[in-house]
Amino acid sequence: MARRRPPLITLTTDFGYVDSYVAEMKAVLFNLAPRSPVIDVTHHLPPQDIQAGAVALDRVVRSFPKGSVHLAVVDPGVGFDRRLLLARVNGQFIIAPDNGLVTWAWLRHAKPVAYELTWRPSESSHTFHGRDIMAPIIGRIAAGRPWRRFVGNAIEPVLIELALARRLQDGRVIHIDHFGNATTNVPGELLAGGPVHTILIRRRRVPLNRTYADVSLGKPLALIGSSGLLEIAVRNGSAARVMRLRVGDRLSAV
Amino acid sequence: MARRRPPLITLTTDFGYVDSYVAEMKAVLFNLAPRSPVIDVTHHLPPQDIQAGAVALDRVVRSFPKGSVHLAVVDPGVGFDRRLLLARVNGQFIIAPDNGLVTWAWLRHAKPVAYELTWRPSESSHTFHGRDIMAPIIGRIAAGRPWRRFVGNAIEPVLIELALARRLQDGRVIHIDHFGNATTNVPGELLAGGPVHTILIRRRRVPLNRTYADVSLGKPLALIGSSGLLEIAVRNGSAARVMRLRVGDRLSAV
Amino acid sequence: MARRRPPLITLTTDFGYVDSYVAEMKAVLFNLAPRSPVIDVTHHLPPQDIQAGAVALDRVVRSFPKGSVHLAVVDPGVGFDRRLLLARVNGQFIIAPDNGLVTWAWLRHAKPVAYELTWRPSESSHTFHGRDIMAPIIGRIAAGRPWRRFVGNAIEPVLIELALARRLQDGRVIHIDHFGNATTNVPGELLAGGPVHTILIRRRRVPLNRTYADVSLGKPLALIGSSGLLEIAVRNGSAARVMRLRVGDRLSAV
Repeated sequence: MARRRPPLITLTTDFGYVDSYVAEMKAVLFNLAPRSPVIDVTHHLPPQDIQAGAVALDRVVRSFPKGSVHLAVVDPGVGFDRRLLLARVNGQFIIAPDNGLVTWAWLRHAKPVAYELTWRPSESSHTFHGRDIMAPIIGRIAAGRPWRRFVGNAIEPVLIELALARRLQDGRVIHIDHFGNATTNVPGELLAGGPVHTILIRRRRVPLNRTYADVSLGKPLALIGSSGLLEIAVRNGSAARVMRLRVGDRLSAV
Repeated sequence: MARRRPPLITLTTDFGYVDSYVAEMKAVLFNLAPRSPVIDVTHHLPPQDIQAGAVALDRVVRSFPKGSVHLAVVDPGVGFDRRLLLARVNGQFIIAPDNGLVTWAWLRHAKPVAYELTWRPSESSHTFHGRDIMAPIIGRIAAGRPWRRFVGNAIEPVLIELALARRLQDGRVIHIDHFGNATTNVPGELLAGGPVHTILIRRRRVPLNRTYADVSLGKPLALIGSSGLLEIAVRNGSAARVMRLRVGDRLSAV
Repeated sequence: MARRRPPLITLTTDFGYVDSYVAEMKAVLFNLAPRSPVIDVTHHLPPQDIQAGAVALDRVVRSFPKGSVHLAVVDPGVGFDRRLLLARVNGQFIIAPDNGLVTWAWLRHAKPVAYELTWRPSESSHTFHGRDIMAPIIGRIAAGRPWRRFVGNAIEPVLIELALARRLQDGRVIHIDHFGNATTNVPGELLAGGPVHTILIRRRRVPLNRTYADVSLGKPLALIGSSGLLEIAVRNGSAARVMRLRVGDRLSAV
């Protein structure tokens, strides 16, 4: 009998690396789905920063194989009656609080659907639904139980104000990474073959190039980054520091 | 023949995430017990902070399945003749320096026992017993060797000054987490059904509630946290910052 | 048929733990070599610090079993025409940009060889060769494809200025670890049985000892560390802070 390969599970949270919270969720997952590999995406999202989580989750959904199950927990509403959801995006599952975390994955993929997670365990803390509700559901789905058992009706998920730019004028910075590169909401398609050669941001003109080699050391450039979105960078430096970029900064063509 | 599921191994240290120390221990574990999953609890314990390690280790022992093997290394005494120990708590194994790291798990579980680890490898550094003595023992135990081969007599482990409160008046803060929530040494049982409705801490009255939803945004509350202990929190904020809480702060009932 | 144990893969980068970059590489590795365990050495190398990466990589190659495949990415030259390389050191594989990352492993092991990585995928970003070129090669090698298919000619790798000391007078600090211990480029063999009893560094005399127990609390000492190199430490303290040590500091015998 062919043996099904157990699905990957990923974790994207703001839990940090100091406490035992992540390990406690992994204990639950391991008990229920011992053969599923568990990959940490990050636990260093800024506390309660839903937009940062939404951006990370989209990159994850673009990278992982069909059937993967992604847990995302940034949950300022834990203990309130905010919903939990299960979304199906790009052949994968996202389990998360229904607070906008799915926004960016939802907008960048075709035909996403979402359902309210209605299953509840017999016992749960009031403060740690990642461990007590979401991880138990994920472990069961990863172990092969039908996901439909855990959900109710299809729902329209909460989306935060984070939209793909349709014109360069709608562009803004949505993420600053570890190296100080600024990701924007401008999809590469918008620039493909077009007449734009220079981006204006923070009153600075930045040339649109293919790769870092096209500018001198310490000079800024714009290029299509590794997730297919326009990025602002500085060759061998930090664009965030050199140009004082912030999430929310607007850009336009010159 | 039924195949035994290999036991989980967890790691709780103050080694940080910058150096290769953790990976070097994992190499040892993998060589000896390649089928055992290894889960990082944290490597960000404050350097040489035994109390923080003791609190994390207890949460771990409450979460993981029987048979799991937990390595804890906060070891200011490495290179001295402090003992190493193997403790059996809640059907699991803890391997650690005998310096108080087991205290909290020891106090919160029934019938713990401890033994001195007497096995030594033929070669060892003087500075890295986690890699050179403890990981080799754990790898062998995880691979199925009887744990009794590695220990001598039962011992009374060193315990640090960290006691479960028997009255609310003995309560104090024992841990500040990543979100600024303060865990105390007050077990939830002490408050169950009792007449206490308000906690006094740092001259502030904090209502005892069931969940965050019971107070307004930015307001403090006390509640039974996800490890069964009383916690002081601020709704959608950091209690540590807002109330200037510190490990060691005392609390009482009003 | 005996089943080959899948090789270990390790990751040593400056990618940080905030973004999804590491997880994206792991997705590639998992797709190609699902049975290979992947171990994070560190993703907290100081951005673009090739020397720190070279020191970590050497410790890794000293610890892991034959056949392991090590990916190291500190890549200020991505997007330029710097080469990528595959090095064979101590029976293991290193895949890295050819910018000096292999230096320390290269110098401390016998008969290393290096080849240029010439294989390229049909598609690749211009900014993330770790995910788009190196991880795909590693996944294929880990899955059993012959490594020679991915390389061209043997090459002399780029080495940075980082040399094993042949006399104590050539000694200098090459790494400061999480605890503030300073690793030097002085191999223990240079001191074995010799007449040296005191090291001079930052105008301070530091006794050469076997273990921390040989000095009083808060006092500095020199000892052979867990990678076989001379280290400067402070008993239960941070030598980096107490003695203001920096990478590059010179030492000598008194």
